Amino acid sequence: VSRAGEFRQLHRPGRPLLLPNAWDLASGALFAAAGFAAIGTTSLGVAAASGKPDGVAATRDETVALAGRLTRLPCLVTVDLEGGFDDEPAAVAELTQSLYLAGVVGVNLEDGRGDGTLAPVARQRAVIAAVKATTPDVFVNARTDTFWLAPRPPGSLDETLRRLSAYAEAGADGVFVPGLADPARIGQLVEAVDRPLNVLINPAGPPLAQLADLGVARVSCGSLLFRAAMTGAMRALDAVAAGGAGPTDLLTYADIQHLAEHAEWDGAGTS
Amino acid sequence: VSRAGEFRQLHRPGRPLLLPNAWDLASGALFAAAGFAAIGTTSLGVAAASGKPDGVAATRDETVALAGRLTRLPCLVTVDLEGGFDDEPAAVAELTQSLYLAGVVGVNLEDGRGDGTLAPVARQRAVIAAVKATTPDVFVNARTDTFWLAPRPPGSLDETLRRLSAYAEAGADGVFVPGLADPARIGQLVEAVDRPLNVLINPAGPPLAQLADLGVARVSCGSLLFRAAMTGAMRALDAVAAGGAGPTDLLTYADIQHLAEHAEWDGAGTS
Repeated sequence: VSRAGEFRQLHRPGRPLLLPNAWDLASGALFAAAGFAAIGTTSLGVAAASGKPDGVAATRDETVALAGRLTRLPCLVTVDLEGGFDDEPAAVAELTQSLYLAGVVGVNLEDGRGDGTLAPVARQRAVIAAVKATTPDVFVNARTDTFWLAPRPPGSLDETLRRLSAYAEAGADGVFVPGLADPARIGQLVEAVDRPLNVLINPAGPPLAQLADLGVARVSCGSLLFRAAMTGAMRALDAVAAGGAGPTDLLTYADIQHLAEHAEWDGAGTS
Repeated sequence: VSRAGEFRQLHRPGRPLLLPNAWDLASGALFAAAGFAAIGTTSLGVAAASGKPDGVAATRDETVALAGRLTRLPCLVTVDLEGGFDDEPAAVAELTQSLYLAGVVGVNLEDGRGDGTLAPVARQRAVIAAVKATTPDVFVNARTDTFWLAPRPPGSLDETLRRLSAYAEAGADGVFVPGLADPARIGQLVEAVDRPLNVLINPAGPPLAQLADLGVARVSCGSLLFRAAMTGAMRALDAVAAGGAGPTDLLTYADIQHLAEHAEWDGAGTS
């Protein structure tokens, strides 16, 4: 079985793949060293770390560079391509193939657009079909933003189902509905869609254990870990600024160096 | 007064400049948004984020790229150049000038080398003199690693003083002794060296308030905030992996978007 095949097999309804999302090599190495078999990327983290806007196809180069780095880690890597970074299905297919040849096993393709609207279903079908025609082995996770885009009214389950069915028919290997937090709706989607369902962990929504019981096959962390990192840094800084010496219970310099062994880089160093 | 002059004025013995060290634009924007007047960089964070080794002159390009991004922030920026990324003093001077012209107000230059030895005093003097001859206005923070490099015996105060005096004579604007945690020694150095003294905050050492009382003029966070970020991410992931929904008290997506206003990038986005 190929590495993409291994990744496919990790999508088990009821025993979901928990996917940490990395924004740089250090975060990816951290998650790989903790034993996670697969990691994703977070477009917010990638955008913020490099100072580019998120969700408006501005971070193609940064995403490709990050994917290249993450594939050096001893884990499977799936990459968030937002809407594909290009209007042309053929261009998205070419990008995906180049990532796959570099060792990436999966991609996320979303129908939400930078202006807050949803791409036409036909466009998403064409993109997914082009990607799968060019790289049949890659795991395409088709994301619909029916419950996600802020300017839109609360999502409709009918619209969501219509989109997910169309994407599955076009060849999507899995489907992803971020923003969905209602257990009943999650359960309905698991039943209605013939593909592994991916949801985003949400501190205000069902915990991982309940998502498993509902039959979810994959749980992404999205921007959660990036936001936890920023929060951790700010708290430590606040503690020092208040006159203190900083927290004593952090990962050490040696711990970070140890990550080097997993990332195949040599972290010997000095500050 | 120039921006470098403003930065110089922030070095006040007894009321030290607390310098948060950033590893990417997001962390820098976070610290700037919190009101810190000046930020530095952390070579460990830069190295780990990009998958390069720290302390062995491997991250010149990443450091220059990060400096370019950080100078877009509404705060003063000083950059850790490790040993200067080049053996030739003229090359270090050229690099520093290009950073200064891009808006950087200060640089750190360290005498510790990747092999665990200290550079000859004469080499460091030549580097500092070349930098100041080329860019007189830039704040040169001369770091000695007498108390820092792991393979070496415990540092000697005499050797430290000899080095700092030589660096000051060569034109250093400030001096930096990471690894120094003994209050008595810190006090002795403050008395003995005619330059603002910079130390690293150390959770096992004197807290900020005590460093102020000792007459320290600048306190760097080094890799502390980067390690706090990694720790925060890992704790959130552990909480989800244990079956939970993740922490609810994190910076929000909107908070990260708000940073955009400070960083002059548009963080509107989607995941």
